[in-house]
Amino acid sequence: MRRIEEVIVDIAAAKAVLAQQTIEVPSWAYGNSGTRFKVFGTPGTPRDPWEKIADAAQVNAVTGAAPRVSLHIPWDKVEDYDALSAYAHEQGMTIGAINSNVFQDDDYRLGSLANPDARVRAKAVAHHLDCLEVMRAVGSTDLKIWLADGTNYAGQDSIRARQDRVAEGLEQIYAGLQPGERILLEYKFFEPFFYTTDIPDWGTSLVHCMALGEQATVVLDTGHHAPGTNIEFIVAQLLRLGRLGAFDFNSRYYADDDLIVGSADPFQLFRIMHEIVQAGALDPALGVNFMLDQCHNIEAKIPAQIRSVMNVQEATAKALLVDADALGAAQQAGDVLGAHAVLMDAFNTDVRPILAEVREAKGLDADPIKAFAATGYAEKVAAERVGGTQASWGA
Amino acid sequence: MRRIEEVIVDIAAAKAVLAQQTIEVPSWAYGNSGTRFKVFGTPGTPRDPWEKIADAAQVNAVTGAAPRVSLHIPWDKVEDYDALSAYAHEQGMTIGAINSNVFQDDDYRLGSLANPDARVRAKAVAHHLDCLEVMRAVGSTDLKIWLADGTNYAGQDSIRARQDRVAEGLEQIYAGLQPGERILLEYKFFEPFFYTTDIPDWGTSLVHCMALGEQATVVLDTGHHAPGTNIEFIVAQLLRLGRLGAFDFNSRYYADDDLIVGSADPFQLFRIMHEIVQAGALDPALGVNFMLDQCHNIEAKIPAQIRSVMNVQEATAKALLVDADALGAAQQAGDVLGAHAVLMDAFNTDVRPILAEVREAKGLDADPIKAFAATGYAEKVAAERVGGTQASWGA
Amino acid sequence: MRRIEEVIVDIAAAKAVLAQQTIEVPSWAYGNSGTRFKVFGTPGTPRDPWEKIADAAQVNAVTGAAPRVSLHIPWDKVEDYDALSAYAHEQGMTIGAINSNVFQDDDYRLGSLANPDARVRAKAVAHHLDCLEVMRAVGSTDLKIWLADGTNYAGQDSIRARQDRVAEGLEQIYAGLQPGERILLEYKFFEPFFYTTDIPDWGTSLVHCMALGEQATVVLDTGHHAPGTNIEFIVAQLLRLGRLGAFDFNSRYYADDDLIVGSADPFQLFRIMHEIVQAGALDPALGVNFMLDQCHNIEAKIPAQIRSVMNVQEATAKALLVDADALGAAQQAGDVLGAHAVLMDAFNTDVRPILAEVREAKGLDADPIKAFAATGYAEKVAAERVGGTQASWGA
Amino acid sequence: MRRIEEVIVDIAAAKAVLAQQTIEVPSWAYGNSGTRFKVFGTPGTPRDPWEKIADAAQVNAVTGAAPRVSLHIPWDKVEDYDALSAYAHEQGMTIGAINSNVFQDDDYRLGSLANPDARVRAKAVAHHLDCLEVMRAVGSTDLKIWLADGTNYAGQDSIRARQDRVAEGLEQIYAGLQPGERILLEYKFFEPFFYTTDIPDWGTSLVHCMALGEQATVVLDTGHHAPGTNIEFIVAQLLRLGRLGAFDFNSRYYADDDLIVGSADPFQLFRIMHEIVQAGALDPALGVNFMLDQCHNIEAKIPAQIRSVMNVQEATAKALLVDADALGAAQQAGDVLGAHAVLMDAFNTDVRPILAEVREAKGLDADPIKAFAATGYAEKVAAERVGGTQASWGA
Repeated sequence: MRRIEEVIVDIAAAKAVLAQQTIEVPSWAYGNSGTRFKVFGTPGTPRDPWEKIADAAQVNAVTGAAPRVSLHIPWDKVEDYDALSAYAHEQGMTIGAINSNVFQDDDYRLGSLANPDARVRAKAVAHHLDCLEVMRAVGSTDLKIWLADGTNYAGQDSIRARQDRVAEGLEQIYAGLQPGERILLEYKFFEPFFYTTDIPDWGTSLVHCMALGEQATVVLDTGHHAPGTNIEFIVAQLLRLGRLGAFDFNSRYYADDDLIVGSADPFQLFRIMHEIVQAGALDPALGVNFMLDQCHNIEAKIPAQIRSVMNVQEATAKALLVDADALGAAQQAGDVLGAHAVLMDAFNTDVRPILAEVREAKGLDADPIKAFAATGYAEKVAAERVGGTQASWGA
Repeated sequence: MRRIEEVIVDIAAAKAVLAQQTIEVPSWAYGNSGTRFKVFGTPGTPRDPWEKIADAAQVNAVTGAAPRVSLHIPWDKVEDYDALSAYAHEQGMTIGAINSNVFQDDDYRLGSLANPDARVRAKAVAHHLDCLEVMRAVGSTDLKIWLADGTNYAGQDSIRARQDRVAEGLEQIYAGLQPGERILLEYKFFEPFFYTTDIPDWGTSLVHCMALGEQATVVLDTGHHAPGTNIEFIVAQLLRLGRLGAFDFNSRYYADDDLIVGSADPFQLFRIMHEIVQAGALDPALGVNFMLDQCHNIEAKIPAQIRSVMNVQEATAKALLVDADALGAAQQAGDVLGAHAVLMDAFNTDVRPILAEVREAKGLDADPIKAFAATGYAEKVAAERVGGTQASWGA
Repeated sequence: MRRIEEVIVDIAAAKAVLAQQTIEVPSWAYGNSGTRFKVFGTPGTPRDPWEKIADAAQVNAVTGAAPRVSLHIPWDKVEDYDALSAYAHEQGMTIGAINSNVFQDDDYRLGSLANPDARVRAKAVAHHLDCLEVMRAVGSTDLKIWLADGTNYAGQDSIRARQDRVAEGLEQIYAGLQPGERILLEYKFFEPFFYTTDIPDWGTSLVHCMALGEQATVVLDTGHHAPGTNIEFIVAQLLRLGRLGAFDFNSRYYADDDLIVGSADPFQLFRIMHEIVQAGALDPALGVNFMLDQCHNIEAKIPAQIRSVMNVQEATAKALLVDADALGAAQQAGDVLGAHAVLMDAFNTDVRPILAEVREAKGLDADPIKAFAATGYAEKVAAERVGGTQASWGA
Repeated sequence: MRRIEEVIVDIAAAKAVLAQQTIEVPSWAYGNSGTRFKVFGTPGTPRDPWEKIADAAQVNAVTGAAPRVSLHIPWDKVEDYDALSAYAHEQGMTIGAINSNVFQDDDYRLGSLANPDARVRAKAVAHHLDCLEVMRAVGSTDLKIWLADGTNYAGQDSIRARQDRVAEGLEQIYAGLQPGERILLEYKFFEPFFYTTDIPDWGTSLVHCMALGEQATVVLDTGHHAPGTNIEFIVAQLLRLGRLGAFDFNSRYYADDDLIVGSADPFQLFRIMHEIVQAGALDPALGVNFMLDQCHNIEAKIPAQIRSVMNVQEATAKALLVDADALGAAQQAGDVLGAHAVLMDAFNTDVRPILAEVREAKGLDADPIKAFAATGYAEKVAAERVGGTQASWGA
């Protein structure tokens, strides 16, 4: 048990860190999403990147913690990126990572960088070079690459040849980087292909990043693992190797469910943030970008994003309250239950009052969900955004 | 080791059974399908139920083993079911199970029979009663029900209340059955919802069937289980209880991948067919309907269906070759390796020559894939089916 | 947000329930346990049932919530069960469920009730009838049956024949029951066999219980499921069917890890207890026995049991704080995020102060772990229990 | 369809390769093994390394393909390794990889190289240096390291600190290598610990091997992966990186079941061998050691090893029959079904006659199982090996 002064010091320190923490939101979370069975539409869904940014700005307005929005190209393709960027700034936002998309063109039926057809591979490389241009135009430095590439049937293509093609394509893209720019390379266990995936695990992503150079780092999407995978281990390992570039936060019970981060296993999210805190990786200098990547198939999208930001904040707050000295001492002593108890003590603490104070110190409402509801924004855009085609993730 | 005469007797008997075996094909397998990320279109894809039936008839023409086609309502809704049925007969086909669809209307965002809104539940019941009418109109006796119902977040709805609502809705549908008609009730581990599914496992499906009565039986979709589930155990159990109504065959490495049956784990398919053979359930009198339910996202659809039918046939042929006497003796003696060897001996046999002979005895080509290619049908429909909207599964 | 009076009423009501809640501890948790690779011994480990009961009584002494101890036969076989029972009473304990063991005799290499050899099956039945005698001798009414039966290789034995043998054996055991006595029938996904398990899932256990009669109910061991299985769904379903007889609580990340309940996924434990609370099943009248079944391979055993009891209490306390009215209203309104938020609000509450008050109201220390440490019991038994053979689970 | 001459050429070439193929057998497979619940003994089980080697030699005698036996230290510790090695040679065997064991001493309760206690870490390093001495004494060059290290509870120890300790310990062991000697570093998903494992996946093993140097390579145990993991992908990736040192072959349905290789998913084994063949890695020059690592809990051990060797041979034979030209052409053309069909054509071929001929060409019986039974060896050792303590894996 710690003396009260110690705990108070911790809480004060935690508040200072929490006040600085930022989480990047994805433009596509404000559009419709769904499953292969159905995409449900909702009144007020944005019809273009401007409206998505406006929605994202709402999340930042009430949380004070979500000042960046990731774009997805071509979903967020516009004529004038200066104007889009300026619009974001007006809304109090900046543009974050640029996400490429090499899975929705008919040419990509058998993959993009791994495609057996050289023409398609060249097209996929060219798309990424275009994305680098967009990235610079909007003032971003991160290109996030998720290759949906894979195969559905044993024998369909050569696993080894595809791996070599991926390496070659990534090299061409990497060659287009300027100093200070980064590639964030995502991995995923399966889907949209169901036999092989060409970058299925952190090991494969890392191997490619190491072959490319220092400007390539791994993206860890919390929903992209085999059942039972210990994600905090991967976090710790990538931090140790200096190659954790970013998170795509979401949660899952089964596959890549893309549910609200922290909704399925809040304890896991806490354990992940504990590794982050232990490694000092909340410090932006370490280069870890904390992003959301979720699908709000059936729930209201802006409140879902607000809740997501809050869930990351709460897990972070708990991680910041872990008594590191007591934990280290118990670990070193081999006190299994004692060490576990130190961690659980922090997890079992109700940190919502602390975060309420952090928000109020910024002049925000203690309760972001209530604050957003009070703005009437949802009703306003539902009334205004009539006609046009609602933006839709994955289609 | 058996005497050669014994093996010959077995092969002759196996051929007789194989010559009779039929597999039902799904109309939706001939339309486009895909993932939430992309549905790829293909030249020649059917635009209506007539064209789907025409394609299905091709599968039957070259295999001689696929004389029924399942319909999906409303995907296969037509004005005149008599005409559709007559068309099928002309093509050498009959209409098999009628599949309801209560997941693509906006009303079903929170479920169908399990929906918290009584109005939506009533609508879902009414749809099923309509499906019974279609069923009778096309001369079928099986209504297949897959409830996509579930929730995405803990607390979203009451698990228990939803279960009671499902029971109530099923009761209303069941009340609409006439003698000789059946409900086939499917279960699925997850998707399109990602926290709870209202009929997630065979136990739940069975419990509802038992509450309904003798005309309700369970559908086992081979892709609808948790990782590691022993499917042949469920087959054996449902046969033992007299409640195995049908299979939806497909295969998977990860989730509900809907790949070609037998492509991911041919040994598993063999083990399933071994249970069928042991229980005598190839006999139509036992009421097990062997159906395909697959998504040919990237491969040619008609050849994929042909391959699927052949894979089921090959697994069946191997199961028929198991030396039941030797197996039973080794099992009774507790000879672990000996019993296993008897089973593997059958699995390791190349049964393709046997099936070639079965086909040739029917006047068919020994190689259905080659035979279909030789018809030029694929090229013909690709040229003819221009314009219109291609049928699409799941959308 | 509820008015403060409402919350106060809830807390008072919750405390009353928590003060009554009891959790049964297993005698074998105090012996050594381990994996196939190694069983680590520890100073002070009990050498006989008396010492195990003495240890269990320590857990009850500091928690006030663990007044029953389950026995395992033959591990806890003694000459004089009256004396053992009397000893338990002196320690403030009663004997709970009697657990049979049909997996450690050489005869059970190919199973017990499912064994192909009728002699072995008869022996397994006889053992259970003996257990019924022990049960009566110690004043218990519950016989818990876990059949470790299964096979390792496809073809090794007939799935169907084994199922019939299990049914027959259970029938013979059930016939030995007197009024007021129960069979608790456990299921398990896999281990110690690795191809089939004869009672692998709740559906199979239920099917057998229904065939037996009203005195047979299902035991849900929280570690005995396929990856991703929604356990609270099964809880809700078995409660709905009136067949949930007992829990074996523990937790897992991978297989049947038998870790401290609530240590791997505290949110899951809360969701389970939420179903219990919603169904009123904390009421002993509903017949659900809440038991622990764990292996403390590397941690101190008595503190681990204390922690386990506390974890169940905390999950229960949170479940009792769920605002049922608000939850029901949000569910009925289809407010996905609102309903989820009501549940999470309870989960995120720090209930430890409430439980501290419940303990203090009973005259106990607010902190059972500290209280146990203060007794010096661990040091005492480590010094006293020298020589003899330490009790060992699983061997 | 290939011309008959082509197929004949393939078969002749395949036979030449198959005649050379060798599989290493583990000494511990001949001892008893089991689960945490029970280890069943069997008449004739070896009591010392000499008897294990004698048993292993039986496998080689009838298959002609298993001329090496791996040892496990300290299970196979003897006074005089020269004598043991000479005895092996007399039996027609050589000693293969030396396996260290840092999980059965009480000191390793919290891990070996990852242990928080520096004394224990030093002890674990020293054990490995001892193993290097044994390795040289028996004429082997491979030290296989499986670290059972891990933790059971979140917070129990620092994931990051443990990783650094493992790196440091491995470095000390690696420093003890002489030119031409190798470390084979195994990874495992979980067990005997159930929260973290310190080398849980191929990525971690690879990262350590790369840090160590060229003499460190990865061991792929086919049972050590998360559910659904595509193992042939890892094989292809490690071959591509030049770091696949060895296989531990076995098979599994659930966890690390250690069943007979090829018994659970023969198609998977074939796909693995296809990657090996494609990469030319049957050539000993590539340094891949094909080893068995299995537990024959309930079946006769020597026949089980014979069956295992045969299963690897059959999978290899099928892989050698894949029409590489046709496969490559279909893959390059993007012919999904065509390429898959080429692979399946080889898999569906009955290769047992080919292997029978390979054996007969060596003067062996076509049927190794029958040949072994005919020797009467099992009965002989059962009669002779009376008294003493049977060797037991894992205890």
